[in-house]
Parts: sequence; structure tokens; C-alpha cells
Amino acid sequence: MPKKTSYKSDIEIAQEAAMLPISHIAGLLGIDEEDWEPYGRYKAKLSLNLFQKLETKQEGRVVLVTSINPTPAGEGKSTVTVGLGQAFNRIGKQAVVALREPSLGPSMGIKGGAAGGGYSQVMPMEEINLHFTGDIHAITTANNALAALIDNHIHQGNTLHIDPRKVVWKRVLDMNDRALRQIVVGLGGPLQGVPREDGFDITVASEIMAIFCLSTSVKDLKNRLAKMVIAYDYSDRPVTAGDLGAEGALTLLLKDALMPNLVQTLENTPAIIHGGPFANIAHGCNSIIATKLASKLGEIVVTESGFGADLGAEKFLNIKARYGSIKPSAVVVVATVRALKMHGGLAKDQLADVNMDALKKGMPNLEKHLHTLKQFGVPAVVAINRFVNDDQQEVDFILQWCSENGVKAAEANVWLNGGSGGEELARTVLHVMETADNTYKPLYELNLPLEDKIRTICQNVYGADDVQFSPKALKQLSQFTSLGWGMLPVCMAKTQYSLSDDPKKLGRPEKFTIAIRELKASIGAGFIVALTGDVMTMPGLPKRPAAMDMDVTDDGKAAGLF
Amino acid sequence: MPKKTSYKSDIEIAQEAAMLPISHIAGLLGIDEEDWEPYGRYKAKLSLNLFQKLETKQEGRVVLVTSINPTPAGEGKSTVTVGLGQAFNRIGKQAVVALREPSLGPSMGIKGGAAGGGYSQVMPMEEINLHFTGDIHAITTANNALAALIDNHIHQGNTLHIDPRKVVWKRVLDMNDRALRQIVVGLGGPLQGVPREDGFDITVASEIMAIFCLSTSVKDLKNRLAKMVIAYDYSDRPVTAGDLGAEGALTLLLKDALMPNLVQTLENTPAIIHGGPFANIAHGCNSIIATKLASKLGEIVVTESGFGADLGAEKFLNIKARYGSIKPSAVVVVATVRALKMHGGLAKDQLADVNMDALKKGMPNLEKHLHTLKQFGVPAVVAINRFVNDDQQEVDFILQWCSENGVKAAEANVWLNGGSGGEELARTVLHVMETADNTYKPLYELNLPLEDKIRTICQNVYGADDVQFSPKALKQLSQFTSLGWGMLPVCMAKTQYSLSDDPKKLGRPEKFTIAIRELKASIGAGFIVALTGDVMTMPGLPKRPAAMDMDVTDDGKAAGLF
Repeated sequence: MPKKTSYKSDIEIAQEAAMLPISHIAGLLGIDEEDWEPYGRYKAKLSLNLFQKLETKQEGRVVLVTSINPTPAGEGKSTVTVGLGQAFNRIGKQAVVALREPSLGPSMGIKGGAAGGGYSQVMPMEEINLHFTGDIHAITTANNALAALIDNHIHQGNTLHIDPRKVVWKRVLDMNDRALRQIVVGLGGPLQGVPREDGFDITVASEIMAIFCLSTSVKDLKNRLAKMVIAYDYSDRPVTAGDLGAEGALTLLLKDALMPNLVQTLENTPAIIHGGPFANIAHGCNSIIATKLASKLGEIVVTESGFGADLGAEKFLNIKARYGSIKPSAVVVVATVRALKMHGGLAKDQLADVNMDALKKGMPNLEKHLHTLKQFGVPAVVAINRFVNDDQQEVDFILQWCSENGVKAAEANVWLNGGSGGEELARTVLHVMETADNTYKPLYELNLPLEDKIRTICQNVYGADDVQFSPKALKQLSQFTSLGWGMLPVCMAKTQYSLSDDPKKLGRPEKFTIAIRELKASIGAGFIVALTGDVMTMPGLPKRPAAMDMDVTDDGKAAGLF
Repeated sequence: MPKKTSYKSDIEIAQEAAMLPISHIAGLLGIDEEDWEPYGRYKAKLSLNLFQKLETKQEGRVVLVTSINPTPAGEGKSTVTVGLGQAFNRIGKQAVVALREPSLGPSMGIKGGAAGGGYSQVMPMEEINLHFTGDIHAITTANNALAALIDNHIHQGNTLHIDPRKVVWKRVLDMNDRALRQIVVGLGGPLQGVPREDGFDITVASEIMAIFCLSTSVKDLKNRLAKMVIAYDYSDRPVTAGDLGAEGALTLLLKDALMPNLVQTLENTPAIIHGGPFANIAHGCNSIIATKLASKLGEIVVTESGFGADLGAEKFLNIKARYGSIKPSAVVVVATVRALKMHGGLAKDQLADVNMDALKKGMPNLEKHLHTLKQFGVPAVVAINRFVNDDQQEVDFILQWCSENGVKAAEANVWLNGGSGGEELARTVLHVMETADNTYKPLYELNLPLEDKIRTICQNVYGADDVQFSPKALKQLSQFTSLGWGMLPVCMAKTQYSLSDDPKKLGRPEKFTIAIRELKASIGAGFIVALTGDVMTMPGLPKRPAAMDMDVTDDGKAAGLF
């Protein structure tokens, strides 16, 4: 984000904004009073009964916002998503923004907030960035209730013969807490349970978060929860949450959270913020329920997926869209001058000056993502997210490149100007949706063997020459296939910084191999996770955590959230 | 609770009840729309600005509900509290019920719910028993954010010289999870933090929960959070959350939770449910803010404290009332025929038949609690909470005993009949408040040495002959005094089942000594905890957890919560 003293901070803009009562926003979408519940004055939970009521209504178009591989320069994908939604409304299209719920852990660490930026934010940003409506807390609670039930089962006689060395269910906190990554629990003698190695993940990396986002109803949620593999027994057979009889209690803990959250943007565009799985270990998209409901309520849904198109968009198109029967009408790929120059080899402190050479060298990163989207058959539009110090010459170069390569593109000035800065982008997306061919289908069929699904993604999406499976991964491939899990889609766990599995290889790396270290069965979520390299499932705090700046002012306002 | 097939279950009664919109309840109390925020249709958070607005309004009377020592027979303190509030409203007194927030952990274990029972419940009981408005989740998060900041500080250079062997701050979950009582964290090498012994408590046992309940404003909250002792350094000097600079972030995480929650009873009596510390390790009372606000909003506040009068009421009268400048007008001591017979020596399966002898033998337990309350100078009323199978002869015996001993008493039929079953009790309490002497003051002055405060409670409240301090406790007495903490009140941690520190000694034990094992400094909460025997700060789940019965029905209703 551009930070000059002459610009207001995100929280200053947010605290000055005039929000409308949430009843007004619900009214804009034609939602009856019986179908939403207030959470404070500016948040509401929407009833799942709306799906029945709106059964015959035509679904609106779904626009997915993704980006090039993220860099420390910042891409502003959420900002563009919010700004584009605002812009659609300005040009007369009823748009609904559908975003992920921010995780509190990273906010306490480095990030500050995660609700867009500048004049393209969702509101009330402090509450969204803190506890919001408690959905993530409900997921944490359900996850840890299951963990307690597992250890209690082992302690109380272990009739399921769970091997304590093979409990795969981890506890979670919505916190960056590296000291909890590897722990030993159950110490202190026979009254304190059975000692075993364990660890905590961050909540947004949990399978329950993924399930929450892939479920299409309360019933589907319960079925998926029952299928979660929590451990293996002494004969190496999988033990599920259903074997433990836990799915009813977990569903009860999650039932209210499953109602999508309605809020608004700075320009009073309706926004539904619901679910937020990590895009590395999980699939990185907001909930299917939210996206589907938004498409029933609006003419256009603008939604985003995590990290770059190699992770979030691939998973949206191969996993979420498949389970949710969602057909995306267009994909917006966010790029910035600064990020492309980093892909072209510059360091973060070298971005201030014009450098056409670095920019040119960075373009292949964008090119590869556009190439990937073409394979999915979905029309793409490039959004150049303007930073206030960007040089026009550099912006024009990207526009020119797009034009020469037959790709539609537009600037987005949404950080500085809100929706009005995104109107050109909105018109471009609209035009593409109305005119371009859309032959969207997932990149692989489900009956392809797991190994081949992984190869397809690595070669076609990442551009790898080959895939190498570790002996452990090979063993798991055959184990998982024999357990009947071969028909599931694959959820890749890979660094977000590079198309390869080496975070240092920016741009468009070539001649590389992806190493698959290990697989993980997320049977409730309905995918097999393939882990490449070291994927962080519990972040740590930096030397000076952002929490040090957080405060409440004497007049009761939040401070230091960004 | 009586369970016959001819009676409806708590959840059946609750799900049939006609709740009024929470706007209506707020209106009953004269609260302007700007001073409350809805959380769903039947819950609201009340603004702390109300204190300023109501500054000149006279405070209503505070009635504290406590009980004899709890037994497995059940006493029904919350049920009587709710029923008495309903009864006051029926006889024309604007009453507000002020209760603690139920902890989810025990609900998943044995208890089911904790929102009263029968026709004296608070509503919506499912939500109150599950996540409610998220206050306990906020406390869990603040507690664990501090833990992460501590371990991160040690990992990142440890400029405060914290001795990792002397970190006293524990992590928490709102869960019964024995496997987390004793753990080792920070394993896995230099990138995963510094290994040390650690453990989780249940959230309601945390100092932050106690602080939350003893704070009188956001500013007071922040000051108290800064004072929390989190560790000792290599020179054995205390290190506080303030030394770490964490109090701003923790206050931010707690600021919305600090607004009290307004709900209603089955008879639409306003109820404020806010805060819920354990009554063993902490002080066992709902928040000062809630009790004070309720006393500004109603003519009479009916509130409760945890466990028996030896724990909850003692701490209400010595700690909460002192910090909150609350003068209780009367104390109701709940007793049941069944529980008194257990104090008289019967087992739980022997309670069905009339047994005057056992009842007589059990009376001294009640007698001792009445004796204790006399020392505080506060008028007491005995409430005999009727179970439907109680024999009138036994009930009459208790009434007769009270009459002979100069104690006002009344039956409470509130489980079966709601408020109408509590009218006699309400009139009795009203009469006592209007006529009896009230010379309430705490049992000890703050300038009494810690050791003498502990002796005062053990001898005057428990009836102990003597107090024995372990060598460790003696060392801590002198350490804490030299650190300037000698002026704080004492929060006793003792079994709730007996007046002594031996849970098996029911009735009114005599000739016993209380053994003080260890002290704990809760400087933010503002008390020194004195631990006797083994006090459970992280419960475990039973062989068949209540969670096994929890479910969501096909039409979306909660099931199995009681």
C-alpha cells in the first residue's frame, strides 16, 4: 500500500466512513426481515432458508479475482475485489462482494488487517479484523472439541484401538504461535491422559475450516465432518470422527457459524464475508454457501481466492467450483508494476525508480497465469492495481503487452478513488463476460489417478518438467488409492511466492521439478493434500509483533490495526 | 432436576417458549436504541455509556443467591435465581437477573447446559450454552495471544531475561481436555521456539476471566491487564504483561466483550449474563459491570455466585463487593431436601424415601453457611428449592428449623411453576430487605497480613481449627509480601463439596485443619490465590461425554444440550 503522510490510513478512512444500517443493506438485496439476524448494527447473519426461497431465481455471474505470485511489494487482491464490486454498482449492476474472513493470528503478527485498503474496504473493518461474528472461534472450538474427544477416548479404554502414535488430528488456535508447532501432551501420569507427540496448527489451516467452506448445507456439513480421518488404528485402518460419534456435537458447534455474514463496503456495496481457509494447506476460498447465496442475491458476485493463480485460482477452479457447481464467468488477474518488477529481479528497496527492463523481465509471471486460465477455458482480464507512485510509462507498458497478447486489461485506481477508480475495469470485465468464449471445465477428471492429477497441476499450472514423489508419498499414493480415496481432487500445498516449490525462484521459472514430500487425507473436505517443501501450518510472530501497536484509545476506539 | 416422562425437558420447554424481541426487553428497562446492539434477535450487548447516562439514578437492591455445599443431588441455584427474578416481576418489582456465562467445556462433558431449569430458564438457552455472544472466545484469544507473545519474546532474544522455567502464564481453552494439563512446548529445534514445560487451563479459570469480571471500565481493564504477572526473570523479579507491552492488544481483543449481554427469562424478565470465572481458582461471580448496570436498570438485581456460600458468597462479599462498591441487601441460601439428606450421610440412590434422620443430620451444613453470612452482617433467607418428588414432611421440617433458629425461609417451586412458584420467596426476601438490619462489611481489612486473611476465612467461614502452610506457601507469603502484594484480598481455591479441604467430609465437619499448598499471584485480578488440596483448573471428559448426545436435527434445531 502507498503510505505517504498526505494520504489517510486505512483505519482513518474506515472510522470516518458513513455506514448504512445493515437492515438497509439487506433491504437492497431484497432479503426479508425473517431471513437475516443482526450482529451489532452493521453485521448480519443470513438464513440458509434463502436458498429455498430463491430456488427459482437465476444465478448471477461469478467473477473470480486472483493475482500473479505475491511479493513483498503487495498486490492488493482484496482491494481490487472490493473496488471492482463498488465499480459494478456504480455502472448499474447489482454486485455483491464475497470475501474470506481474516484470520486473527497473522493480524497480530505482521499484516495488520485484511479487509481491503484505502477507499476499497469492507466495513466495519475493526470488527471484521478482530472477532467478527465468531465463525473462526466456532471452528477452533469444534476442532479442539474433537481433539479432546480423541484423547479422552484413548484414555478411557480406547475401544477403537487408536494408535496414539498415529493420531493425525491436530489441535488449532487462531494465533501465530510457533511454540505450539511441536509439543508433547498427556504428561503427568495416568490421571492426565496418554502421552503422545502432538502439535497445533492455525485454525485457518484446519480441515474443519475447509469443510466449512465446501459444505452446501448443514446436512452436507455433518456428513463431511463424520468422514474426517482423525487417526489410524493398530492395524493401520483409518478411524474417523464418525467412528467416534462426534459429528453431531461438531455440527451443533458450527451450525450458527454456517450462516453467511453480510456487511458492506465503504460505498455501501453489499459484501458477504464467510470462511477463510489458508490457500497453501487448504483450498483458500471463501465458503461455497456464501458464493452461491451471493450469486442468488446479486447480478454479479466478485469473489477472490488466496495467493496467486497457481494456488487459489487453481483450487477455486478444480475444487470449489466443482463441489459447488459454480461456473465462473471471468477471472481477473491482479498485477502491479511493483510486483512485476520484483518478479523481474529487483529488491523491495529498488522499486521507486522507473525500470522498464525489470518490468519486462517480470512479465512472464503474469503470462504463465494467463496461460493457465486459458487451459481452464475461462476468460481472463488483467487488472493493473495502481499505486499512487506508479509511473504511467510502466503502466502503459503492461497495457500494451496485454493488447499485443490478445488479453483484455484495465487499470484499477480503487485504493485511491474507490469504485470510480474501477469503472473501466468493471466495463472491461462486463464486456468480456458478454462476448468471450467460456468453455470452463476443471483441469482434470476425478477418475484420473491421484498421481496423474498431481502431475497435471505441476506441469500445466506450475510449468514443471517433472514431479518427484518421496518414498513416503509413493507409499501413501498406493495406500490412499486402496482405501478408495483415489477419486478425490488434489489440494496442492506449495509456497505462494514462486510457481515452483522454491520460494526464491520468482518470475517464470523453467526446468524445475516439483518434489512431493508427503500426502495428507482430508476426506471430510474431500481432497488429498499434496505437500511440497516446508509448508507452514502454524506461523510464528516476528521480532516486533503488530500486536505491540494495538490499543484502545481513551474514547474507546480501536487503534493500531494496520 | 426431577426427570419423569410426564415432565418436559429443559430444552423442550425452552424451544416452546415465546421470546419477545430483545428490543422489547431493552425498552422495558428504558434503554435507548443507541445504547444497545443486537446479537441475533434475542440477545443484545449494552453500551458502557449507560453508566454515564444513569449516573444520577439510584441503584437498585442487590440480592445474592448462594447455596449449601453442592452435592450430586443438585441444588438448582441458577434455577432459583431466575425464578426469584421472575417472581419479583410478578409482584410488581422491576427485577433484573444477573448470571454468569456458562463455560462450554463442562457442557460437553457432564453438565449439559447451565441456564437454569424447568420453567425458570434464561433464553435463548441453546445459544447461551454454546457460543453466546463470543465473550469467552474473546477471553481465550486474549489469554493465548499473551502466551504467544511471551514465547515469542523468549525466542526473539529475551531482553526481559524471562526464565523459561518460571513462566507462570498458562494457555487456555474453553474445553475439558485433560491431555493438555501438562505438556512440553517449543520442541523441534531452534526454529520452533524455546522448549519448556507448560499446560492449558480451562478459560474460566484464567486470570483474564477474573479481571474481566472485576473491572469497572475499559481503562480499569487495561490497567489490570498490564499488572498481570506472567513470569519471573533470572533474578526472580516478576515480569508483567505491561513489561511486554501487551495490554493494548489484549484490551482491544476484549473491548467489545466487556459490554454486558442482555437476554430474557422464560417469563420475559430481563437477564444480564456476563462473565463466568470458576469459583474454585477464581472468584466465581459474574462481572461487576453487569451487576452494577443491572442495579442501575432495575429496582432489584438477583445475582448468584458459584458453588456454596463458603466459596462463591465469601468471594462475592470479600472481593467482588469490595472492588465494585456493591452493598448486597440480602443473601438467599438455596437448600434442597435431597442435598441436605446427602450431607446427612445418604448416597444418591437413597434419596427417594423420606428419611428425617438423615435430613436432621444434614442441617448443620446449612446452619454453618447462615452463621457465616451473619458474620458479614448481611441478612439471609433460606430458599427450599422444591423437587417434584420431595415429601412435604421433610420440607416442613426445614421450615420449622429455620423458624426456630430465627431465620426467614420460604419454599421455591420455580422449576415446576416458574415465577409464580417463587412469589412467597420474593415476598420474604422483600420483607427481610425492608426490615432486617444490614451491617454488611467484608470479613477482613485489607491491611491484615495475607496469612491472617487466610486464617480468617478458614476459621470463620469453613470452621477450621487451624491452618497449615507448606514450606513453599510460607516462602511465597514472605516473597509476595515483600513485593508489596500483601494488601490484596485472598481468593481461596478449595473443593466445593466440603466446608473442609477434603471433598468427602460432608455436613459440617469439625476439628480439621486446612492445608495451604501453594499461593498464586493474580495481581491483575487483584487477589492472591491460596490453593488447598488439588484444585482442578483443567477438567477432563467422562467415559461417555455429553457431547455424544449433541446433534442438530434435520429441521436445524439443537438437540442433546441437556
